[in-house]
Amino acid sequence: MRSVFCLLGYEVYQSDISSASDLAYALELFHNFTLVHDDIMDDADLRRGQPSVHSKYGVNEAILSGDVMIIEVYDRLIHMDTPHRQQILAVFTRTAREVCEGQSMDMSFESRDDVTIAEYLKMIELKTAVLLGIALQLGAMLGGASEKDQDHLYKFAVNAGISFQLQDDFLDVYGDPKSFGKKVGGDIIQGKKTYLYLRALELLSEEDRPHFRDLYSNGHLSYEEKVGRVKNIFDELYLPHYCGEAKNAFFDLALSHLKEVSIPEDPRNRLEQFARKLMDRNS
Amino acid sequence: MRSVFCLLGYEVYQSDISSASDLAYALELFHNFTLVHDDIMDDADLRRGQPSVHSKYGVNEAILSGDVMIIEVYDRLIHMDTPHRQQILAVFTRTAREVCEGQSMDMSFESRDDVTIAEYLKMIELKTAVLLGIALQLGAMLGGASEKDQDHLYKFAVNAGISFQLQDDFLDVYGDPKSFGKKVGGDIIQGKKTYLYLRALELLSEEDRPHFRDLYSNGHLSYEEKVGRVKNIFDELYLPHYCGEAKNAFFDLALSHLKEVSIPEDPRNRLEQFARKLMDRNS
Repeated sequence: MRSVFCLLGYEVYQSDISSASDLAYALELFHNFTLVHDDIMDDADLRRGQPSVHSKYGVNEAILSGDVMIIEVYDRLIHMDTPHRQQILAVFTRTAREVCEGQSMDMSFESRDDVTIAEYLKMIELKTAVLLGIALQLGAMLGGASEKDQDHLYKFAVNAGISFQLQDDFLDVYGDPKSFGKKVGGDIIQGKKTYLYLRALELLSEEDRPHFRDLYSNGHLSYEEKVGRVKNIFDELYLPHYCGEAKNAFFDLALSHLKEVSIPEDPRNRLEQFARKLMDRNS
Repeated sequence: MRSVFCLLGYEVYQSDISSASDLAYALELFHNFTLVHDDIMDDADLRRGQPSVHSKYGVNEAILSGDVMIIEVYDRLIHMDTPHRQQILAVFTRTAREVCEGQSMDMSFESRDDVTIAEYLKMIELKTAVLLGIALQLGAMLGGASEKDQDHLYKFAVNAGISFQLQDDFLDVYGDPKSFGKKVGGDIIQGKKTYLYLRALELLSEEDRPHFRDLYSNGHLSYEEKVGRVKNIFDELYLPHYCGEAKNAFFDLALSHLKEVSIPEDPRNRLEQFARKLMDRNS
């Protein structure tokens, strides 16, 4: 997804996308670096239906592979033959730090019970969306986009990214079990503080909140009972509706930035269609 | 040590060492990044007599802190205001990869029983010595050294670094318990494949080798018995002598490169004295 965003951004301004392949590769590799280390931290045994690196090769090997990956990312970036190299390095490095900050926030949420929706949105922005943002921005920068265009493309992709993540939270509960890659309800079983959970807490009465917290963190209920009971509460609170609203708000904001980019309708439509395709997936 | 090497290298050519402080900081921080992650991989609870990062703050926090540290290293390097920036980035990145390769070799040695002395020397060169090498080289590069000078300074520091590491192996067994920071004999207790161990295997008869291997990997003997018995074998094989010979060979090679550097006697002597001081420590 990051490499596609990067190549799409470049293609808006230049035709020979092979010139952006190193950048696209580096951004995708950085994303994979974060996945390898995050899977250790999250104790996640599966990734895209396959054993995660540390569960297959061991934690030590996964730490070291991740370290080599980020060094390889920089190796690619510093050897890019473009007048924009210095700027690409600076923007990438600022973002890499933000992604780590997002992961740190995410980890801190596990032990906190006062996480706000604003904090959650900031976390997914940092952990996921900013990398999509610079993928599109840096692809465009390499292609010769103006600073103003770069800025709007960045904001388009960041807000679309937040929207995708809200969609992910939604699908984890309401996705089609047939096409969803993993078991529906995983976030509920793990007691993950998702948008749905935080929004539910906000909507519940002060009286009901402790019961819901107990249910959500309960590790003794059967899969069916826990997912079923939490889902009932989500339904009663119209969470599919509220989640859809939030998702659309970020997507609309994304589109408003796309409109501001000074490019022909053709590439603008391609970018919009790609984002819509990512949003409309139901798994 | 890396920052001192870097500043010394710069000072040979320029007087205002504050201009090299970002570089010195970045190299020292990179070293600390490797320590934080290596301590997780080596399951080391102590570092310089203090709790290691993961044993104090948790493995996840240590992984992520390390990740932020290496991003910070690059942040410093890419924002250096020098015409040599690109070259510094390239040399540093090649070396960072080598350091990871050294750590990977070290980890693989744990489960192998056919490690050769040549492999061991390559491992300590990559894991420890090359970073010392570029600390001195890049400091000198920043100061305006010729490529030839840089090359000899690099080789001086790399070979001195191998020599320091052999000294470390020696001190772990023969160090003065009063001034040695950690308990003497730690490598023997852990069954670490050090220079002394590999050299002992080489010197022992084919008949004695399996007994020595069994003793060295034995986890049931008391501290005193295991360290005492291994040390006796080391003594009988004249290992302090052989280890000293190897140490001196690398140190002499280092000095031969220092002689080739086209600089006044004063800074040359300072570099030699600094290296000698590091060698002569007995703890």
